[in-house]
Amino acid sequence: MSEPLTTIIAAVQEQLRKTPATAQARFQSNSHLASGFRSDVSIRQHRLVVDEPAALGGGDAGPNPIELLLAALGACQEITYRAYATALGIDLDSVSVKLSGDIDLRGFFGVDDKVRAGFQAIHGEVHIKSRASASDLARLQAAVDAHCPVLDMLSTPVPVTLELVHV
Amino acid sequence: MSEPLTTIIAAVQEQLRKTPATAQARFQSNSHLASGFRSDVSIRQHRLVVDEPAALGGGDAGPNPIELLLAALGACQEITYRAYATALGIDLDSVSVKLSGDIDLRGFFGVDDKVRAGFQAIHGEVHIKSRASASDLARLQAAVDAHCPVLDMLSTPVPVTLELVHV
Repeated sequence: MSEPLTTIIAAVQEQLRKTPATAQARFQSNSHLASGFRSDVSIRQHRLVVDEPAALGGGDAGPNPIELLLAALGACQEITYRAYATALGIDLDSVSVKLSGDIDLRGFFGVDDKVRAGFQAIHGEVHIKSRASASDLARLQAAVDAHCPVLDMLSTPVPVTLELVHV
Repeated sequence: MSEPLTTIIAAVQEQLRKTPATAQARFQSNSHLASGFRSDVSIRQHRLVVDEPAALGGGDAGPNPIELLLAALGACQEITYRAYATALGIDLDSVSVKLSGDIDLRGFFGVDDKVRAGFQAIHGEVHIKSRASASDLARLQAAVDAHCPVLDMLSTPVPVTLELVHV
């Protein structure tokens, strides 16, 4: 796996350097509320079901949106570890991520406007199996955390515009 | 649906007001990189596959992490529309969300450190079918955007701590 991935990454970097216009990409998601709190999501050919657990009034047909955000962060970390381990030539046998997000539900339910609606903090452990030295792994972690797209979006605000269309 | 949901929301709000300690909740996600860029995610009893498309070196077995983040935002908006329409007594026949995120891949690939790794902007349309007036829908949108947990986390930084564990 690591040989072809090295080639792919080097080729992509070379292409983006030469023709920055090819670096612009757009990703999309479409969803609709099916019933109750259940949302059916389409992303290209992929389908997801999002729902709330019973304790929050849902049917628990899938993870809820904030669990999905944790999943996005965990997978993004793992993929970025694989990419940068490959690019930096640092050994990486396996990587797994455990994440916890702490929320005060008074925010979402509008009970106290001083309480934020989202997670107050996210804590995680990144478990790495590797023959690399501690200093190489620290260098890898720094590179990953500087380039992980989902971590970036939780650290630096993203301009979001949402237009209401009354159909 | 709307009668029981009204009851659930009112009961939860009353409980959170009376005993704020019950408002503290923790959500979790566990994942591991299975092969290549494919990540297998477990959230309670739910399973997800995350992967990169072929153009980015993956096997396209699922949405990628930034598509998953868009899905989380779309579903969160829809669920929050249902909850606040119910709580405010505003008619809501259906809600669906289309989102686009624009990214400059030079950020993720480390080609230009001035380019952020995540989306530069997210644009969306929230399609609402409702007999409510335009002013009620504007009031609903304001309530939703003030209380949507995923929108909050893209607008106000979340403290994230990630500990590397060398196993």
